[in-house]
Amino acid sequence: MKKSLVALALMGVFAGAYAQSSVTIYGTVDAGISKRTGTTTQVGKRDNNKLGFKGIEDLGGGLKAIFQLEIRYEPDTGTIENTSGANSRPLFQGQSRVGLQGDFGTVRLGRGLTAFQETSTAFEPWSGIPAVAGYQTDLQVAGYSSDPLSPVGNSGNRFSNAVFYNTPMIADMFQLNVTVGAKEANNGPAIIGKGIATAPQFAANSAPVTTPYSLSATAANGPFAAYAAYEKNAIETKLWSVGASFKPMNELKLMASYQKQDQGNSTLINPDTKAWILGANYTVGAGMFRLGYGQKTPDNALGNPALAKTKQASIGYDYNLSARTYLYFDASNKKAATTLNYYGLGIHHNF
Amino acid sequence: MKKSLVALALMGVFAGAYAQSSVTIYGTVDAGISKRTGTTTQVGKRDNNKLGFKGIEDLGGGLKAIFQLEIRYEPDTGTIENTSGANSRPLFQGQSRVGLQGDFGTVRLGRGLTAFQETSTAFEPWSGIPAVAGYQTDLQVAGYSSDPLSPVGNSGNRFSNAVFYNTPMIADMFQLNVTVGAKEANNGPAIIGKGIATAPQFAANSAPVTTPYSLSATAANGPFAAYAAYEKNAIETKLWSVGASFKPMNELKLMASYQKQDQGNSTLINPDTKAWILGANYTVGAGMFRLGYGQKTPDNALGNPALAKTKQASIGYDYNLSARTYLYFDASNKKAATTLNYYGLGIHHNF
Amino acid sequence: MKKSLVALALMGVFAGAYAQSSVTIYGTVDAGISKRTGTTTQVGKRDNNKLGFKGIEDLGGGLKAIFQLEIRYEPDTGTIENTSGANSRPLFQGQSRVGLQGDFGTVRLGRGLTAFQETSTAFEPWSGIPAVAGYQTDLQVAGYSSDPLSPVGNSGNRFSNAVFYNTPMIADMFQLNVTVGAKEANNGPAIIGKGIATAPQFAANSAPVTTPYSLSATAANGPFAAYAAYEKNAIETKLWSVGASFKPMNELKLMASYQKQDQGNSTLINPDTKAWILGANYTVGAGMFRLGYGQKTPDNALGNPALAKTKQASIGYDYNLSARTYLYFDASNKKAATTLNYYGLGIHHNF
Repeated sequence: MKKSLVALALMGVFAGAYAQSSVTIYGTVDAGISKRTGTTTQVGKRDNNKLGFKGIEDLGGGLKAIFQLEIRYEPDTGTIENTSGANSRPLFQGQSRVGLQGDFGTVRLGRGLTAFQETSTAFEPWSGIPAVAGYQTDLQVAGYSSDPLSPVGNSGNRFSNAVFYNTPMIADMFQLNVTVGAKEANNGPAIIGKGIATAPQFAANSAPVTTPYSLSATAANGPFAAYAAYEKNAIETKLWSVGASFKPMNELKLMASYQKQDQGNSTLINPDTKAWILGANYTVGAGMFRLGYGQKTPDNALGNPALAKTKQASIGYDYNLSARTYLYFDASNKKAATTLNYYGLGIHHNF
Repeated sequence: MKKSLVALALMGVFAGAYAQSSVTIYGTVDAGISKRTGTTTQVGKRDNNKLGFKGIEDLGGGLKAIFQLEIRYEPDTGTIENTSGANSRPLFQGQSRVGLQGDFGTVRLGRGLTAFQETSTAFEPWSGIPAVAGYQTDLQVAGYSSDPLSPVGNSGNRFSNAVFYNTPMIADMFQLNVTVGAKEANNGPAIIGKGIATAPQFAANSAPVTTPYSLSATAANGPFAAYAAYEKNAIETKLWSVGASFKPMNELKLMASYQKQDQGNSTLINPDTKAWILGANYTVGAGMFRLGYGQKTPDNALGNPALAKTKQASIGYDYNLSARTYLYFDASNKKAATTLNYYGLGIHHNF
Repeated sequence: MKKSLVALALMGVFAGAYAQSSVTIYGTVDAGISKRTGTTTQVGKRDNNKLGFKGIEDLGGGLKAIFQLEIRYEPDTGTIENTSGANSRPLFQGQSRVGLQGDFGTVRLGRGLTAFQETSTAFEPWSGIPAVAGYQTDLQVAGYSSDPLSPVGNSGNRFSNAVFYNTPMIADMFQLNVTVGAKEANNGPAIIGKGIATAPQFAANSAPVTTPYSLSATAANGPFAAYAAYEKNAIETKLWSVGASFKPMNELKLMASYQKQDQGNSTLINPDTKAWILGANYTVGAGMFRLGYGQKTPDNALGNPALAKTKQASIGYDYNLSARTYLYFDASNKKAATTLNYYGLGIHHNF
């Protein structure tokens, strides 16, 4: 039979112009029971929940095409993350990127974690997951947001409309990472900043005035690893961060980081926020303990109790049922203007 | 080459820290043409439409980790179910659960059908699918909603923020099922109830005052099966239901159920609704007939024509093209305050 | 162990009542960098981005069941297409259809491209993708929308609530295609048309007054192919279109099309729009050049500069890295009331 002309679409669709490739479906379901100061017992989570699609195509000569699309959702309600009217996060909140990998490194376009955000998670005692007991969402970023001009509720760890570059490993030890965002508006709300309510410094749906970017460098040698990162967002808030980890023995990983946010471009008083974290991961049999302590310090805070120093101490325990599934328990005490105690237990399943 | 430190994420993503597992993609596409009293001919559906992702991991020693995520959508418009502005149903309206299965039974956390709702569908002549000609959505629940404090348009058959437990089979005959919801608010609208418009009994975004729960027990022995269920929702409406089925021969399944809803906590008059259903499934060759008759009776309804008795008679026919695909025809007459005649035919495809 | 009765759902889900079938996951990630008159450099796309699920089941005797569900998204922000508050496009914007294929042809129900829209893309020099440099979205449809009564921002190329029929190939040369929409309202906004603001010709959430339909016929013989199409939408706007293509040698495809939109039912002045396009695809080694020129002409436009003639000249180049992945460059000049210059380069990856 000759080729159906009209129904080229049908053909393409059902016969397949190209072979079915290596689409991998992956994800995380993490659900548990938690209790924090001032609320009833809730069904919640420790980690982000993901449903993702990714693939890699060998183009020959060491060149590869890669893509990744990652849905984020809440298992307790079945919604995508942060659903509330028009403020839902993107369907592919986790990331949506496509690019090439080769001897020159990796180049990707789209939306994803910035170089700083992607780098620093390896130096956080909860492995960078946004657990209440962990340090990623608040202390490890010193209160900073990578994406202040996106809609309220959108992720603060990502650039949209960006180019992502990672070098290959240099001298078997070093790697550099760069993320550069386009100066595109993204339907964000107004930010008063140094303006006034009727004339905000950044109007609604502002585009970045200067190009946002993020840089990080890492080094790893035997039991030692370290990073340094610098990022400037769309409203010219600056963040720098350094961290290191050390494994005195195979079962123990010690880590520390320091970060400073400078909001001088959009804040008249107290523009600087500093934070540091100490952490440890200690493996015993099928279990692993997570320990952390950290502080976050706004400058000139003495006159304003709302700007009190934040102090957080946390302990967690993972019990591995397999390489993909573990049970966990977290407990945390976080003192700021008020004190938050948190307990959580649950199950974390990768697929 | 040494491990890239920064790009641990890249590594994890593209090399795979854990083996690709048994993610199964499954779903239903059901579309047809239907006509009901007072409307033009429409493209519609008989069953819910699903796109799901599920998996099971053997943890050894009889223990298994299980998860399931289920999108629900409308094939005639391509939207997720009930999309209208801020009232869209959750992306994973069908369910989003993770848990463990073992000798102790099955424990899951997240969002899904309650014990009552999951049990009773096996005793309904349209197999519990929410067909217009079927009895599930109205008569089999006696007008009851499992989730009155969720946003308008959300599923009335499910608990969010819940723990689900099923026992294993007991004495090869019995099984018990329990669902317990957390007392979490879920952005629902106000419910006036026994209050007044300016002081509703349940304010907007209310949390349940007492813990919602659902219980069901089933028994099965040869051609006989039966269930009993009791449920209390977040506004303390109570529902109990019993049902049985009998197969006098392999081709014929007879079924009956009775249910009573008590809205005494939120309604001053006519708090009780009762419903009963008789049904049959009769297989002839590649086809199966579905027959049902049922009534729903509000108490003290005589004085209020809006509370008239509901009487529904329905017939359906499935013609199986394969184990996964069938054509169907439904006809139904439903008399209440007004009379609804319904005809539908279509195709139902499982994948 | 006997079959668990309650947890029929559990059983169905985790043991599988039917074998896992041939669900194919497929999609496109296309992202690049672009610059157009009056904007900064942006991260954008050339093609639509898709994540789809499709399958085909052999029912025996030449009969097949087919389904297809297609998500459309923006890789630069991770959102589904056209997300802005309540005006998001459907999750399965691409299509959601189920049907049967056999000796009689193909019948499908649901939502998808109309017969005209599906046919004409094969005669457009950018292969019908909605590239800024391409002709599909504006000139090839002569400004026409297939779905004017759906919410603002919804696709203008599709029918919802429709039946789609394609004949088999006739005499190895011809194919006919028919799409018929139901007269269902779909939450669209009011259209003033020949009415006034307070009494619009089509009220909000109008249903079509007459049945919308689309017809196309194609013929293909050796190096020649041609089509003719006619469509009438829900507000009785009419569109007809003819086109042809010729391959003088294997590396070169020449194409031309002409289309006319008649908005006489909803517009008092200038109801007609005409457009024509000439195009070529020329393959050189691993690359392919795309060339196009076209005009769109509103009648009686001289008195109204806003209705000036549109003239568009474009060139594109694809460099294939594999059968699934290519890099591209586009440049376009489009003159209408204002002039738009456009440059874009990026990567297009099918999976």
